[in-house]
Amino acid sequence: MANPPLRLSGIFPPIPTPFGDSGEILFDRLEENLDRWNTEPISGYVVGGSNGEFPLLTIEERVEVVRRVRRRAAADRLVVAGSGMESTRGTSALTGMMAEAGADAAIVVTPGYYKGRMTSRALIAHYQTIADQSALPLILYNVPANTGVDLSAEAAIELSRHPQIIGMKDSAGDVVKLARIASESAEGFQVLAGSAGFFLAGLAVGAVGLVAALANVAATALDELLRAFRAGKLDQARAIQARLLEANSAVTSRYGVPGLKAAMDLIGMYGGPPRMPLLPLEVAERNLVHEALVHAGVLD
Amino acid sequence: MANPPLRLSGIFPPIPTPFGDSGEILFDRLEENLDRWNTEPISGYVVGGSNGEFPLLTIEERVEVVRRVRRRAAADRLVVAGSGMESTRGTSALTGMMAEAGADAAIVVTPGYYKGRMTSRALIAHYQTIADQSALPLILYNVPANTGVDLSAEAAIELSRHPQIIGMKDSAGDVVKLARIASESAEGFQVLAGSAGFFLAGLAVGAVGLVAALANVAATALDELLRAFRAGKLDQARAIQARLLEANSAVTSRYGVPGLKAAMDLIGMYGGPPRMPLLPLEVAERNLVHEALVHAGVLD
Amino acid sequence: MANPPLRLSGIFPPIPTPFGDSGEILFDRLEENLDRWNTEPISGYVVGGSNGEFPLLTIEERVEVVRRVRRRAAADRLVVAGSGMESTRGTSALTGMMAEAGADAAIVVTPGYYKGRMTSRALIAHYQTIADQSALPLILYNVPANTGVDLSAEAAIELSRHPQIIGMKDSAGDVVKLARIASESAEGFQVLAGSAGFFLAGLAVGAVGLVAALANVAATALDELLRAFRAGKLDQARAIQARLLEANSAVTSRYGVPGLKAAMDLIGMYGGPPRMPLLPLEVAERNLVHEALVHAGVLD
Amino acid sequence: MANPPLRLSGIFPPIPTPFGDSGEILFDRLEENLDRWNTEPISGYVVGGSNGEFPLLTIEERVEVVRRVRRRAAADRLVVAGSGMESTRGTSALTGMMAEAGADAAIVVTPGYYKGRMTSRALIAHYQTIADQSALPLILYNVPANTGVDLSAEAAIELSRHPQIIGMKDSAGDVVKLARIASESAEGFQVLAGSAGFFLAGLAVGAVGLVAALANVAATALDELLRAFRAGKLDQARAIQARLLEANSAVTSRYGVPGLKAAMDLIGMYGGPPRMPLLPLEVAERNLVHEALVHAGVLD
Repeated sequence: MANPPLRLSGIFPPIPTPFGDSGEILFDRLEENLDRWNTEPISGYVVGGSNGEFPLLTIEERVEVVRRVRRRAAADRLVVAGSGMESTRGTSALTGMMAEAGADAAIVVTPGYYKGRMTSRALIAHYQTIADQSALPLILYNVPANTGVDLSAEAAIELSRHPQIIGMKDSAGDVVKLARIASESAEGFQVLAGSAGFFLAGLAVGAVGLVAALANVAATALDELLRAFRAGKLDQARAIQARLLEANSAVTSRYGVPGLKAAMDLIGMYGGPPRMPLLPLEVAERNLVHEALVHAGVLD
Repeated sequence: MANPPLRLSGIFPPIPTPFGDSGEILFDRLEENLDRWNTEPISGYVVGGSNGEFPLLTIEERVEVVRRVRRRAAADRLVVAGSGMESTRGTSALTGMMAEAGADAAIVVTPGYYKGRMTSRALIAHYQTIADQSALPLILYNVPANTGVDLSAEAAIELSRHPQIIGMKDSAGDVVKLARIASESAEGFQVLAGSAGFFLAGLAVGAVGLVAALANVAATALDELLRAFRAGKLDQARAIQARLLEANSAVTSRYGVPGLKAAMDLIGMYGGPPRMPLLPLEVAERNLVHEALVHAGVLD
Repeated sequence: MANPPLRLSGIFPPIPTPFGDSGEILFDRLEENLDRWNTEPISGYVVGGSNGEFPLLTIEERVEVVRRVRRRAAADRLVVAGSGMESTRGTSALTGMMAEAGADAAIVVTPGYYKGRMTSRALIAHYQTIADQSALPLILYNVPANTGVDLSAEAAIELSRHPQIIGMKDSAGDVVKLARIASESAEGFQVLAGSAGFFLAGLAVGAVGLVAALANVAATALDELLRAFRAGKLDQARAIQARLLEANSAVTSRYGVPGLKAAMDLIGMYGGPPRMPLLPLEVAERNLVHEALVHAGVLD
Repeated sequence: MANPPLRLSGIFPPIPTPFGDSGEILFDRLEENLDRWNTEPISGYVVGGSNGEFPLLTIEERVEVVRRVRRRAAADRLVVAGSGMESTRGTSALTGMMAEAGADAAIVVTPGYYKGRMTSRALIAHYQTIADQSALPLILYNVPANTGVDLSAEAAIELSRHPQIIGMKDSAGDVVKLARIASESAEGFQVLAGSAGFFLAGLAVGAVGLVAALANVAATALDELLRAFRAGKLDQARAIQARLLEANSAVTSRYGVPGLKAAMDLIGMYGGPPRMPLLPLEVAERNLVHEALVHAGVLD
């Protein structure tokens, strides 16, 4: 990597994929959403992450969404494409397709189906093989709540030495592990908090940015938190963090992607239905999302 | 379903997919394996199950393997094709392709990525939608060790009422749940033990057959167990069960697919390497598989 | 052990401790309950087990309950006293007190508080130390749902060689493990199913008896199941097993000790309130217990 | 509570109980340890916590250790006594005994044996009953790694309204929950980080102090971290946090109480053997503890 490495600091929404009532992708809605996000304090877009329902898309759809986002995203925004598959070979191939589609980096979730065999040795071999073949810088993506696999600190630290592996998104919320990776990984390796609930705690121990569902609907508040932290105004950062906890829970652990899509609808963007087997929220759940957004100051 | 339902009793190996050193599928090896299995007391083949490394195959490969197996399998053997995908629509489409490829039935693993949202309501909707559109009889497939999702007894019992859902493979090993499903499901619904370790216990509470990795290398012993059980010779069945425990563990919970492939190699069939991120066994592990097979009476 | 070992075959209710409204032990109610159990097909009583709320009793109370049970139990009934404590030394001391109180054997639950350190090595040392000092034959007691510790098959098999360790109650419900312990443990080592939900499956793989909450309220049905199994009438055994599943769930995994006490009340024995922090069932829960008992044929 | 509430800010070592080779408590060693801790920047002592091996002590021993510590502790140090038992009534009684023994506050671990029934409702009733009867201010103690029970944020917030419940030690390491409790609990409720691994992250989200095994051997470094944080020197705090991670892991998640006792021995205090079923570290493990202490700057 002769080029300076990509800077991953700041706020990255993992954008949802908008579907119509029969499950088709609505690219015009995607573009409208991007037009709004383009005006917000956002460093880039994660496309085809868990919140993008990537496991429910075909490979062709995954690539096409990235292509469309790249075309519509403001020029100064990074486009980070999810290219994880269960197989190493499949991930390599898809990463190559994402490079051609215009992505700036790829974010690669750990495989999860054969969790009993996903030792650190297997995961290191997996990621190194992909990185060796990749035209794009890679970001490790650890999300045990979805995969049932927890990439160890040791494995992450080992992988951080590969020149093509530039960072890690950790959604597990184990700040001890975050602290350890931030302090022991290779120079320049960038740790991203993977949920807005531990954004402040993550920053305190060395994270530089955030990839979190909540950033789709509350990027401004999250950016304020980040700036307060950087300015040493910890009380202010803590107050913002506290105010966002309930909304964050609503769009992640409590209601997942359907919760995020409901929140998008509630703030006047396009959320729409998820693809099955995900089901849309019921009315009572949607009301709780509304309350949480009001509490967060995102809605009046 | 005007036709009489498929009988799922007996032994079903979930066959592995043979790969070469660069990861390509070796169809000739597959056919040689089938020629040997065709001589054994086997009711049919599960193709593209967890042991077939389905998540590591492309869709085209999954279909092609089924087509080849159907062509080579003895005429009296059922071909049960794994057609599960994370999305409902993807699973429906693939199930249709499996029908065209000649499968007799489809076995559909629960989705697992969005495990936090995989409520019984979501899983029931998922399976009913697929069943409504399916040309093939469906077998539910519950394997929490891989998916992190555990289909509840209530959901399985509810789904058993759908005329196109004819049975369930449960690999979780919870015999209380097996007993409940066997006794409370719709008339004719067939429960299959999903691991050879609890085959006898499963039979005792109402299972009619077995889909288990060990059947690839020990079908004869498993058939003897089944016949001893049916003949009321419980002591004999118990002795066979005990003898097979260690070998079963070696090819499932302990070493998974790489363990099964090593066992295949050891008995003179083609196992070969798994696809990455699965890694082949190390020498010491392979030796333990050998010992277990000797203990089981499969090897001298 | 010059004496013939205790026979643990048959049905053993782990009897609840009857409390009054202010939490005091009601010994007269205990005796009335015993008078009724003494008429039922029961091999003996487990006193001070999980269903006896042993962790909520003082040491003096634990011993006194055993003393009273021994005095009132029919002469041909074994009295098995729970003597597990977190510390090895405490368990040894209490086992000695149980011998003096008239127990025939002690059942010793695995320690659980320091679960991260409860390796097989630690558990083997724990049990061997106690057994070396014990005047009573010991029964291992594995109940991960309460302790968070799962005694491994290897450890159980190793411990089975100690002459003073005569059996094991396993409540985990892993029949693969039960089968392995039954087949690989020392000659004469007796495995007891630890919940009525897998009684039949446990018998099939080599268990000789049952220690289960449900035996307090359905000993006759459980004895019929056992006799049907022994007579080779597996269909009959399976039908009884199926009929009892719901009631078993109500007094174990679903509602625990409060469920068992509600069931006792409903069949005209003394259940009464549990000690805090256990709370008595609410009305709706109690109604579900009633339904389950009717379904089981225990109540009309 | 007419008196001003106890201030729980600062560093609190949960002190180990020193045993001799036959398991007896060595009170003179305890006093020597206290003489050294009395010179360190410590706000008080937690006596009879998990690191004090309270489940392995008799009730009389638990009280006696508190009495001895109170007598030897510097006058300005708080003595916080662990008084948790499985039963509500037992905990109330022991809390009263701890008041008589001279404790300033009691720390009460959640019950854990009947984990399936430890709903928020049951835990709230448990703690409120104890608090209503307690002469001492109470600190909630949540340590799922030992108890298998995780006190919910909702329950903690509800309990924070009781005037006699003044704080909470949370060892679970979920900073999202810490943040929520810190921001939504009653005015004056004090949150303590329960492990040194997330001390800085905990402070960032509102914790005021630390109860952690590592404080027994590294109180000075932890106090430096705290003062750096309070002075807004976050980079310095982060560097200290990073330096301590490995040592913290050695005396908690990796090796537990035996690790802590080995560390005590290594720095020239009295650690000694744990009580069985805990086993002392093996040589290789002890060497790793040594390395970690060197890395932390605690040993040369």
